[in-house]
Amino acid sequence: MIKRITIIGTGLIGTSVGLALRSNGFSGQLFGYDASAVEADKALRMAVLSDVVRDEAAVLDAVAESDVVVLAVPVFAILDWMPKLARTMKSGQLVTDTGSTKLEITKSAAKHFDGSGAAFLPGHPMAGKESGGAALGEATLFANAMWLFTPASGAHTSMEIEWRAWVAKFGCRMMDLDAARHDVLCAWVSHLPQMVSTALSALLEDEFGGAEDMRAIGGRALREMTRLGASPYSMWRDVAMSNTVPLADTLLALEQRLAHLRENLKTPELREEFTRANRFRSGADSEMRKD
Amino acid sequence: MIKRITIIGTGLIGTSVGLALRSNGFSGQLFGYDASAVEADKALRMAVLSDVVRDEAAVLDAVAESDVVVLAVPVFAILDWMPKLARTMKSGQLVTDTGSTKLEITKSAAKHFDGSGAAFLPGHPMAGKESGGAALGEATLFANAMWLFTPASGAHTSMEIEWRAWVAKFGCRMMDLDAARHDVLCAWVSHLPQMVSTALSALLEDEFGGAEDMRAIGGRALREMTRLGASPYSMWRDVAMSNTVPLADTLLALEQRLAHLRENLKTPELREEFTRANRFRSGADSEMRKD
Repeated sequence: MIKRITIIGTGLIGTSVGLALRSNGFSGQLFGYDASAVEADKALRMAVLSDVVRDEAAVLDAVAESDVVVLAVPVFAILDWMPKLARTMKSGQLVTDTGSTKLEITKSAAKHFDGSGAAFLPGHPMAGKESGGAALGEATLFANAMWLFTPASGAHTSMEIEWRAWVAKFGCRMMDLDAARHDVLCAWVSHLPQMVSTALSALLEDEFGGAEDMRAIGGRALREMTRLGASPYSMWRDVAMSNTVPLADTLLALEQRLAHLRENLKTPELREEFTRANRFRSGADSEMRKD
Repeated sequence: MIKRITIIGTGLIGTSVGLALRSNGFSGQLFGYDASAVEADKALRMAVLSDVVRDEAAVLDAVAESDVVVLAVPVFAILDWMPKLARTMKSGQLVTDTGSTKLEITKSAAKHFDGSGAAFLPGHPMAGKESGGAALGEATLFANAMWLFTPASGAHTSMEIEWRAWVAKFGCRMMDLDAARHDVLCAWVSHLPQMVSTALSALLEDEFGGAEDMRAIGGRALREMTRLGASPYSMWRDVAMSNTVPLADTLLALEQRLAHLRENLKTPELREEFTRANRFRSGADSEMRKD
């Protein structure tokens, strides 16, 4: 039974995991660590943590005594922690993560968590906000969200089964899939939308700066298409660096599609593109998550 | 004083104009015409119309007796109606429209409504939905929306002043601007977002069709970026045809920006693009309309 959890990274996701655990009845010990002492203190003040650990040595002491360790830091920081945790932890313990890309992490898990010691369950809650930080953490951040797993093997330890039960209590739908497929799908449904929103926002900033008439006219369409333009680079750098080829493929495909549409603004092909788009949306309306 | 209004085109916008007039106290006569008898009957059933006129000859009879005529049809249909209305109507009467592009219409107004007869006020309510039709009409569709005008001259007739007062009662903000500037701005804030959403939706339809894992994973980002993919071609054909060059310019600029971003996924320039996008959004948050 899970009695002690260490959360490494108490930003938006890590703090929300802590809040979700507490609000769903987790009464065990909950330790938190963040490279930013300010973020760690915020998480502690939000009363979800039993205590904060202050340096890497203390983290390794805490994880040695933990049933579950949750890595809620950016992808390359997760990759840094993994061998250290593998050396410190033992059979019966579980490490899981919340990283946005899964192929590199799942490969590293196969190398460092080979079944002789602690288990590693690669995870990815499809939830977030366009800004980060502990202060935005919410117990309900994961309600109705998809929490993906990309396990390297089909073996389920009892800790893993119990962790999945907690995720279910958070209100998540869950799906297991291949790590490479995960990264391709997330390039399309998450990373491409982010990059389009960033590119459009940056372009408008260069074209119009503070032009008041453009700002005054922009309505819902512009607001939706640029909402993710507020996302900080710090949250996306590791995604771009660890999922470069799938993301570049989606960007190139969209560039070509926009050029195709541009060349057909006055031809019947424009109608065909609208028809295809309508078909996508009529399926999407019934199937995609509403929130 | 405006006592009789004819609305040509009783789809989403025309019906909403009628509903907004009634809910803000317009007690005069309201006639409606639609090329689709079904749409006209729906508008009549929604109880906003005094009566429906059934053919073009009857429309010309109705407009001859109207203080204001509202052209709420697509751009090329507006351009078709304009010379017919100019021939039928007289000084003291007002024609206005709700077309999405304004340069062609404003040019036609200067030609056909030269000041000797009825006045023409080119208008564009920045409101709508991703689907059309009288049944979706709402009295509050224009609340908090921007209603743009691109008058050819600064002369204001009393009918025009009174019509602007009605638009203010609908809850709109209003702005007058040059017709060419209007079309460039709307290419950026409205037409480009539409085309990006259509292109992305069509691309996803081709790539994934009914693939269930993609559908299951897609969350808010995907839903927002593809919402306008549901828009029908019939609503956008005239925009693409009448604002081709400004729209093509914005598409090309975005294609180039996406390519730039794709070539810099692993360089410090990605950070610069996020910084520019953040700057756009921090201005946008305070200034763009919330709804």
